[in-house]
Amino acid sequence: MTHETLSLSDLTAAATAAARIAAAASDVERATWLRAVADALDAHSAELVEIADSESHLGATRLTGEVARTTGQLRLFADVITEGSYLEAIVDHANPNSTPPSPDLRRMLVPVGPVGVFSASNFPFAFSVAGGDTASALAVGCPVIVKAHSGHIKLSERTAEVVSAALRTAGAPDGIFAVVSGREAGVALVQDPAIKAVGFTGSVPGGRALFDLAVGRPEPIPFYGELGSLNPVVVTAAALADRAEALAAGLAASFTLGVGQFCTKPGVVFIPAGTNFATLLAEATAEKTGGAMLTERIAEAYPDGLRAVAALPAVDVVSGSVDQDAAAHGAAPVVFSTTAANVMDRPEELLEECFGPTTLLIEYTTGAELMAALAKVPGSLTATVHAQPEEDISGLVEQLSHLAGRVLFNGWPTGVAVNWAQQHGGPYPATTSLFTSVGATAVRRFQRPVAYQDAPESALHPALREANPLGIPRRVDGELRLP
Amino acid sequence: MTHETLSLSDLTAAATAAARIAAAASDVERATWLRAVADALDAHSAELVEIADSESHLGATRLTGEVARTTGQLRLFADVITEGSYLEAIVDHANPNSTPPSPDLRRMLVPVGPVGVFSASNFPFAFSVAGGDTASALAVGCPVIVKAHSGHIKLSERTAEVVSAALRTAGAPDGIFAVVSGREAGVALVQDPAIKAVGFTGSVPGGRALFDLAVGRPEPIPFYGELGSLNPVVVTAAALADRAEALAAGLAASFTLGVGQFCTKPGVVFIPAGTNFATLLAEATAEKTGGAMLTERIAEAYPDGLRAVAALPAVDVVSGSVDQDAAAHGAAPVVFSTTAANVMDRPEELLEECFGPTTLLIEYTTGAELMAALAKVPGSLTATVHAQPEEDISGLVEQLSHLAGRVLFNGWPTGVAVNWAQQHGGPYPATTSLFTSVGATAVRRFQRPVAYQDAPESALHPALREANPLGIPRRVDGELRLP
Repeated sequence: MTHETLSLSDLTAAATAAARIAAAASDVERATWLRAVADALDAHSAELVEIADSESHLGATRLTGEVARTTGQLRLFADVITEGSYLEAIVDHANPNSTPPSPDLRRMLVPVGPVGVFSASNFPFAFSVAGGDTASALAVGCPVIVKAHSGHIKLSERTAEVVSAALRTAGAPDGIFAVVSGREAGVALVQDPAIKAVGFTGSVPGGRALFDLAVGRPEPIPFYGELGSLNPVVVTAAALADRAEALAAGLAASFTLGVGQFCTKPGVVFIPAGTNFATLLAEATAEKTGGAMLTERIAEAYPDGLRAVAALPAVDVVSGSVDQDAAAHGAAPVVFSTTAANVMDRPEELLEECFGPTTLLIEYTTGAELMAALAKVPGSLTATVHAQPEEDISGLVEQLSHLAGRVLFNGWPTGVAVNWAQQHGGPYPATTSLFTSVGATAVRRFQRPVAYQDAPESALHPALREANPLGIPRRVDGELRLP
Repeated sequence: MTHETLSLSDLTAAATAAARIAAAASDVERATWLRAVADALDAHSAELVEIADSESHLGATRLTGEVARTTGQLRLFADVITEGSYLEAIVDHANPNSTPPSPDLRRMLVPVGPVGVFSASNFPFAFSVAGGDTASALAVGCPVIVKAHSGHIKLSERTAEVVSAALRTAGAPDGIFAVVSGREAGVALVQDPAIKAVGFTGSVPGGRALFDLAVGRPEPIPFYGELGSLNPVVVTAAALADRAEALAAGLAASFTLGVGQFCTKPGVVFIPAGTNFATLLAEATAEKTGGAMLTERIAEAYPDGLRAVAALPAVDVVSGSVDQDAAAHGAAPVVFSTTAANVMDRPEELLEECFGPTTLLIEYTTGAELMAALAKVPGSLTATVHAQPEEDISGLVEQLSHLAGRVLFNGWPTGVAVNWAQQHGGPYPATTSLFTSVGATAVRRFQRPVAYQDAPESALHPALREANPLGIPRRVDGELRLP
């Protein structure tokens, strides 16, 4: 529920009290809380999807899948914490014979404390009230105060009720979870001294403004923001010669998925000059209908963005129309094309994210030109290459690794698997940190290390006791040991 | 050497070129570079110590030990990278049967790129040109540009010559290491777009100013600053009853070590009210002579700091004199005492770090008063408790874990072991990040994750290839596996 009657300072005080209880709870207990939330969301899936569809227009099929993804994510984090590696337990026994003699030193990660989470418009479940930021913070024992997205307030309130009830029934402490709403509450949340870290998914301007607040505090705190991403795709001449139609169909499906409102939407696609790919893509795109966007504000911004691109020199509209009333009739897909040479002339205008079902083809004439234009692409969540097995793409892969957190081969970036190896984050502005917001390692964002020197067994967390009673992987005297 | 003839942009361009070569080098190669630097520093130890002593006045014994610590640190990082866990290699095989089907996804950490390092005045070797920040950045493949500390410029230049020659001979790429000097160069270094992270050890005002620059860049970068630390110590009544003289001797040795110029110096010591500990400490302190401080500026600031404390209400001078000319005659130890009640009244004035051989005894009357005063202590590198085995100190340990990165039992914080479990970092202002600047895990500061989706074997780093040719620990399909 949104706590209309409780002030933010009431909520952060309760979160601070809950933080000590949650930190002291065992991994098994916290895993129970996460699984209870997952079960409750699954049980309320139909009801929640209906509310979500009414607010976001994303459709029942997609939203039902997103609930499953969200509950799968909660259960993954339950598995992650019970496995125990996430504590990074390290034991160095005393060595009286070293110079100087070294003490017994044992290090582990502990929760940072209460966390603020800003939910996203485009994933009302997976990146929202009970999404990845919330799940990963709760997993490691950090209370969460969510700033609900104005695009789906009713869903946020109802999800919060379901989550709160599940946590309470499962025995989680009071104050471990709350939702607030409104811009002012969000600003206050980032600045509240009780809040020790912030997770955010949203736009570059909004995210940067909150980042600036977080790092400008008397006590700066980590701001894990996922802000914006162009997700460049490179198609080699050989790949295009092999499967131009399949590539056009795949790209059309990817950039229009969810009405082009994925953070991983392919926004720029580098193709060899002098091919018929633009025509093929236009044909494949013509089969896509677009649809209602998430919010009226987003729908109004979309054609503005389109017109800004269309007004640039040496940019062609390959498919669709920039003169559309997306707020009234839904957003329709638009494909632009330009040249790599033009990108070199005005990188800032051409290499800017346009939220919605649109993408920009960039024709390159040589490998050197391709590499030069890629060097202008800002940090992204993903970078993709379509190539043939016999091609040497090592230089290209190095360049793509340099600019993105996930490098895909012969695929499309819009799917984001939730597993141990996922990396959903990249150089700024894709993210404001060296971490991921999706996948098992996302928990590290909300942990800080503490070492205990010459501690008696009784003062140690079980993870650090000599006998390893939790049976977790640990590094002992430099050697990694499995339980 | 300091590159008087090369501009900063020349140096960062060279570092950027070197970054790609260093990233592509094997762990074994980079370990060779680190060991070559360590060997060269050991070979030049006598010469370097002489220069260091002339500039820092820290004495040949301490400085010789510090060289050994510094070269041991370089060799530890060589071991860390060849062990391979630091890459955090994770392999999730494709699962066509999951909903939705999941791709093959492989994640590892890669170097962030060129790093700026600000060396400290108080450890001319271990936290300076070839210190922990430099070693951990080079270890993972990040070129380093060091801003030399003005307190030991000659040593910085000579150390840089030794390091550069060793790196060159060992086959490291040109541009991987450079030193600049001057305040202006430091400011430019933090703001240079080629620099992707900064390590810093120094004062709160200086560190915060650079932190603000780093996070205020168009592309913000991580700023790993170690700024200031009070290092609170708590002595229980039972411990004091058991060994008051030993505690007084230990504390006197710790707070005067290195003329009180350790970041881990115990700055505030909570003791039970109504004991003779102050007298014992005064006696133990009388045997300490103090000495010349690192720089004239530091020596001039020391008595200013002392006088500010002495001028506060309800503060007694237990030992030494605040009216001293530390610049002319060396700094002499001073012990203050006050009450926990007074700390509650003026926490900001009493709980401020004073660099030099001084400490503040804080007398508490009840456990509740102790806990309330501890809650006012700012984030610290260390927190120490002296207690008896039969005491229940769980609440106290929880509180100390909350405010520091290392919690010591019945010891003194001024020794910092360089090993796998060390944590040298704590809540702000101790550090500006959730990382350590000492110990094996310090390398994580200069790495960022990249995941490769459905990549052909030939495009993968050896750490991620199916056969695990490097023989490193990896997580495969969720399961941690040793080589």
